[in-house]
Amino acid sequence: MTETNFIHRKIGRITWTAYQKHLTREPIIFLPVGALEQHGPHLPMGCDAIFSEEVSLRVAEALNGLVLPPLTYGYKSQARSGGGQLFPGTTSLDGQTLTSMVQDILREVARHGVKRVAVINGHVENQWFLTEGIDLALREAKSNGNQMQIVRCEYWNFTPQDVLESLFEGAFPGVDLEHAALIETSMMLALYPSFVDLDNLPVDAYGQFPNYDSYPQNGHGVPASGVLAPASQSSAEKGNLLINSTVNAMVSALQNEFLIS
Amino acid sequence: MTETNFIHRKIGRITWTAYQKHLTREPIIFLPVGALEQHGPHLPMGCDAIFSEEVSLRVAEALNGLVLPPLTYGYKSQARSGGGQLFPGTTSLDGQTLTSMVQDILREVARHGVKRVAVINGHVENQWFLTEGIDLALREAKSNGNQMQIVRCEYWNFTPQDVLESLFEGAFPGVDLEHAALIETSMMLALYPSFVDLDNLPVDAYGQFPNYDSYPQNGHGVPASGVLAPASQSSAEKGNLLINSTVNAMVSALQNEFLIS
Amino acid sequence: MTETNFIHRKIGRITWTAYQKHLTREPIIFLPVGALEQHGPHLPMGCDAIFSEEVSLRVAEALNGLVLPPLTYGYKSQARSGGGQLFPGTTSLDGQTLTSMVQDILREVARHGVKRVAVINGHVENQWFLTEGIDLALREAKSNGNQMQIVRCEYWNFTPQDVLESLFEGAFPGVDLEHAALIETSMMLALYPSFVDLDNLPVDAYGQFPNYDSYPQNGHGVPASGVLAPASQSSAEKGNLLINSTVNAMVSALQNEFLIS
Amino acid sequence: MTETNFIHRKIGRITWTAYQKHLTREPIIFLPVGALEQHGPHLPMGCDAIFSEEVSLRVAEALNGLVLPPLTYGYKSQARSGGGQLFPGTTSLDGQTLTSMVQDILREVARHGVKRVAVINGHVENQWFLTEGIDLALREAKSNGNQMQIVRCEYWNFTPQDVLESLFEGAFPGVDLEHAALIETSMMLALYPSFVDLDNLPVDAYGQFPNYDSYPQNGHGVPASGVLAPASQSSAEKGNLLINSTVNAMVSALQNEFLIS
Amino acid sequence: MTETNFIHRKIGRITWTAYQKHLTREPIIFLPVGALEQHGPHLPMGCDAIFSEEVSLRVAEALNGLVLPPLTYGYKSQARSGGGQLFPGTTSLDGQTLTSMVQDILREVARHGVKRVAVINGHVENQWFLTEGIDLALREAKSNGNQMQIVRCEYWNFTPQDVLESLFEGAFPGVDLEHAALIETSMMLALYPSFVDLDNLPVDAYGQFPNYDSYPQNGHGVPASGVLAPASQSSAEKGNLLINSTVNAMVSALQNEFLIS
Amino acid sequence: MTETNFIHRKIGRITWTAYQKHLTREPIIFLPVGALEQHGPHLPMGCDAIFSEEVSLRVAEALNGLVLPPLTYGYKSQARSGGGQLFPGTTSLDGQTLTSMVQDILREVARHGVKRVAVINGHVENQWFLTEGIDLALREAKSNGNQMQIVRCEYWNFTPQDVLESLFEGAFPGVDLEHAALIETSMMLALYPSFVDLDNLPVDAYGQFPNYDSYPQNGHGVPASGVLAPASQSSAEKGNLLINSTVNAMVSALQNEFLIS
Repeated sequence: MTETNFIHRKIGRITWTAYQKHLTREPIIFLPVGALEQHGPHLPMGCDAIFSEEVSLRVAEALNGLVLPPLTYGYKSQARSGGGQLFPGTTSLDGQTLTSMVQDILREVARHGVKRVAVINGHVENQWFLTEGIDLALREAKSNGNQMQIVRCEYWNFTPQDVLESLFEGAFPGVDLEHAALIETSMMLALYPSFVDLDNLPVDAYGQFPNYDSYPQNGHGVPASGVLAPASQSSAEKGNLLINSTVNAMVSALQNEFLIS
Repeated sequence: MTETNFIHRKIGRITWTAYQKHLTREPIIFLPVGALEQHGPHLPMGCDAIFSEEVSLRVAEALNGLVLPPLTYGYKSQARSGGGQLFPGTTSLDGQTLTSMVQDILREVARHGVKRVAVINGHVENQWFLTEGIDLALREAKSNGNQMQIVRCEYWNFTPQDVLESLFEGAFPGVDLEHAALIETSMMLALYPSFVDLDNLPVDAYGQFPNYDSYPQNGHGVPASGVLAPASQSSAEKGNLLINSTVNAMVSALQNEFLIS
Repeated sequence: MTETNFIHRKIGRITWTAYQKHLTREPIIFLPVGALEQHGPHLPMGCDAIFSEEVSLRVAEALNGLVLPPLTYGYKSQARSGGGQLFPGTTSLDGQTLTSMVQDILREVARHGVKRVAVINGHVENQWFLTEGIDLALREAKSNGNQMQIVRCEYWNFTPQDVLESLFEGAFPGVDLEHAALIETSMMLALYPSFVDLDNLPVDAYGQFPNYDSYPQNGHGVPASGVLAPASQSSAEKGNLLINSTVNAMVSALQNEFLIS
Repeated sequence: MTETNFIHRKIGRITWTAYQKHLTREPIIFLPVGALEQHGPHLPMGCDAIFSEEVSLRVAEALNGLVLPPLTYGYKSQARSGGGQLFPGTTSLDGQTLTSMVQDILREVARHGVKRVAVINGHVENQWFLTEGIDLALREAKSNGNQMQIVRCEYWNFTPQDVLESLFEGAFPGVDLEHAALIETSMMLALYPSFVDLDNLPVDAYGQFPNYDSYPQNGHGVPASGVLAPASQSSAEKGNLLINSTVNAMVSALQNEFLIS
Repeated sequence: MTETNFIHRKIGRITWTAYQKHLTREPIIFLPVGALEQHGPHLPMGCDAIFSEEVSLRVAEALNGLVLPPLTYGYKSQARSGGGQLFPGTTSLDGQTLTSMVQDILREVARHGVKRVAVINGHVENQWFLTEGIDLALREAKSNGNQMQIVRCEYWNFTPQDVLESLFEGAFPGVDLEHAALIETSMMLALYPSFVDLDNLPVDAYGQFPNYDSYPQNGHGVPASGVLAPASQSSAEKGNLLINSTVNAMVSALQNEFLIS
Repeated sequence: MTETNFIHRKIGRITWTAYQKHLTREPIIFLPVGALEQHGPHLPMGCDAIFSEEVSLRVAEALNGLVLPPLTYGYKSQARSGGGQLFPGTTSLDGQTLTSMVQDILREVARHGVKRVAVINGHVENQWFLTEGIDLALREAKSNGNQMQIVRCEYWNFTPQDVLESLFEGAFPGVDLEHAALIETSMMLALYPSFVDLDNLPVDAYGQFPNYDSYPQNGHGVPASGVLAPASQSSAEKGNLLINSTVNAMVSALQNEFLIS
């Protein structure tokens, strides 16, 4: 992997004059959001930002959009979705901090004259604090007479059901436990195979959780690896299929949402 | 450039198990902080995060430290140091947001058991909000019985004076106007030449400012390019000299500060 | 219905001296959380607080616990889960406000010496702001040496799957669209039939939503009634079955979680 | 008592469609605010919310208004007005939290198109944080072009002086110490006699306080019961007189303030 | 008047070494709080800070205490107590800002090792935000193991009733309307006669207010001068009597409260 | 010194009616900002507020402006600029508190109709939190349609270089270490000689600092006196020269900035 992929889509990698030219055609601006969170003994802790940025870049490429620098820290990991806060390395924000990050960035792009934003979320726990940041930014924009349309997408919701069923051979149990498991491992193998430590793939296991959360977090039911579902059947091929189908679905959805012919 | 450089130093690119092993020897943890800010018609807007991260990685390599994902958004650009907020693309945070980012991240690494942190600042305007984030984190850590030693470095203060004098041929006017000028352009040519748009180097000019600030920002005295001092004499060779001498000075300082033999 | 039901479980309806006596046996303290949100042309806007309080009271009765006054305002309604903020009457809080409410109340019960708290959520959109309030309260409690164990329950997750399947005659589509629909209407018919305006039951319809959210909210896909799934097959009998089975499951879960023999 | 009293005035007990119809005639919207605070060994801790809601409902009935769900948690109890924070059960909010609650709710009713709001306070300590919430909401509303007229009433200020003098047989010492004493006990006997534990009426006593406050609160001068003045002469008859005269005075005042003919 | 009066009591006028010496005997530290608020056509807008500081200095002189720089901005003026926010010149803080000022200053003096603080309030509207600042500071101090005893005094509550009755010739109507009227005018004549514009004494009049507050503030019932009660009978002699008797009463109270023999 | 100097320029010392008359000619309003911070064994801790207010008064006198009460508490002292927070007596604010103070005051003067404000800073550490307060106030003012022009001046930047060179006999090392040293001591001797404790002038010494900051502050390199550079050559004559030349330069700059003929 080199950073030359989609460099021209990265707002942090182009000049302000290039950005200014782009603005005249009212491009969709993407804000990828991730986390710094344990992803098992085999995946890097920055997974969620990598995936949300890579998906954003591909969708932006298709829609002639631009991608803001990803938010690489996210909300606190929960046992049932990410293994929880007890793992060293997981480095999370208070909810209000994440909300303020989103609000501030949206305020600024509104000032630039941006009209359409897609917040692409790669970390389950972020969703509601992103929602609040968007709401507060739009409230403020309304006072200032700035109009923007903003969508918030959890990228995994765009993966077609038939793709999931085929990858899991008809036994897809849902995304709830897919933390650092087959889906994410496959996607990383497709994107950055060197980031996957294949020598340390976890033994296949499932997180075992009740239907509620207990605090302070105690790690009950979280496999020692931090991986919540089997990863052993991962492959780059599956990863490419996941990425491509997800990107395609998101491209279609945003074309429709933003009325792009 | 590829992202394989110093990958093993990036906390976002290693696994939690690898991070855990590192922790046993109490490494210095680096937090690079940048901005998304116009850097003239020839440099990418993410310059400050790139420089602070690259310096951090090299110092971490020398001191066996680790580097957190850089903060890629910073405090509001000021006319006299960065050309100001009027350029499209400059995307800045409120002071409290930046402060909270730092406070939250420091709270988390304290929880990991980290004892020594170096916040490496690459954007003039960040300094005081970083300071406040550090202070609030240490106040909280004190209540919780967590001890940490934290340094905050503006990386440019480590460049030896004789290096600057030699690069500017004895006429170094000080760093105040060195925004997107010789120093930063040279460093980017050394690090990521493909990110420099040499066809669009700005005409040499200086920002012309009074000794105070006026608000709302009006752009007076800021060259149209956004570049505050001449960049035409930039070179990769100068950039390498700047980076190496700065890194060496910071390595020495941190060895001394953290009593590393 | 009269307010005499379970009055002795309501902290707001007993004296401080009675509360003090209860504290000696370390009861579980329940905090029900709802919302003020449209629930169709047939259900009252305070539904979510009613349900979370009624469930809390019944579980508290079984476990000899006590119930705090419910939070009757919640986080902003979303189109896909509650029809959204465009309906008059829906009266929602900013995320930070809800978080602070929870944090403040938990700080106070910690001061009382309470050791076990169950936050019972009745409004989908509240979940993450409750989580944050719990986390902030426990962080503070840790500094002060107060230990508390807190669970956060979305009450609907406790309804046994077989009950749902039987009520929906084997075609339960999941709770996602069950806003002001069969489940809530049946429960209200069981609890407070006079609160249900049977003359204004909505025509059966489903909300039609994409797999992402768009802001500012536009009401697309939300039936004009605000009801997101059919309610016509509701009955008090079904409501009683829902409530009883949910309460029983929660009683078992909390007995187990709090190690009550 | 049953909750069927004034149910049609409670916004939390009617449907959004009913609420929408009400809005066309620009009704006064009432927001009752109370507290969860010790009220002696004989009165329930939710007294203040009960009284402010009951007064609101009766005034709303007279003026064809509607009543929001009461805020059942208030600002921190002070020794001189409520016995202070040292009693178990007293569960109070930080000032900013209460302010934000009011600000958020007022923002929302402004969005509904509400033009006239009466905040009815039932807890001395709330007054200034309610005032701030109102001020912040109106500042925001001004930015958004929403006009609202808001009054904030401490309900006890509406009780006619001659009623007080007659109830206290010409020796009314002022409301300052009337915490859980004759006035509140009588009102509760009138409203919800079953909520009064007549077997545990406190021995008549007065709080003994200096003319300043000392922190941390130490309980000096607060009778062990938490009751700050004699309650033994309470009666439902007196309570009815208090409630009716207070309600009548408030009805007149609001008719005048809101220019209702 | 010269600033040489009580200079040695002013922490802002002594050196840190002098302060350090004082600390060894654990002096009471006074924090005077005022406002910048209209005080009629004859009194300066800084009245409240002047009075609270002058009272503090005199009490500190008697008790060998020290006085912090006064807070010269206060909470928003209300019609019934200060004429309201509609007068040009009145310059007020949000409640949270005033609270944070107090919290921050108390945190710092706790760090100095101060054990006893008297917050002397000179502006009615400040009271509850000062209370909250004290509470938050003590909460934090508790986490840090710092013990402090803090009193909050509204200075006017210390004026003996018989003094007031004598000054008003047996017809003292209470302090509620004493804004920029006889009491404050007399005190200023005693302290800084040159600050009183005797040529512009307002015509005697009373504010006429209902028993509730209406927002946005509309100025109803506020005399055009901003003065809420007659000032014409003011004199320096009365002022001296007021100041001396108030100071004496506060000295006694604090001796008692802080157990000073 | 008596407080009769420039009294007519102090908004806190004039009446609201006098202020109102001034407003008709759109005067520049000055907001001086200082700190409560150790200034060696010979200077009072309130130095920074004294200097910023005195400069403001003189500039206001020249430009027919008015001066708000100074902010007498500032941001946390740093070792390199003020000796740091370890000295007893230094009493500092959190950054957000200082920012809110400025924002609130600017909001209020905007309401008065003020169009031109000069924030005059006397404490290095305040600069960025003042900047943020100004930015937030202008953002809010923009929403409300209020236009204001605001400058923020560090007063020491206005002292002409030739004056500094002459006072330091050609060896001016820059202002960085001029804390409680020749410049401030001379200015205080010129303004309030009685506030200078000449018997306790510190032995001449320089602070010795690295080019970064370390936290928690440890006092390394800070002379025991708290004075960071020699003060022995101070004189009232030098002080007068400093003040006059600084004031003159600021008068010229503001005339130019605010287009005053």
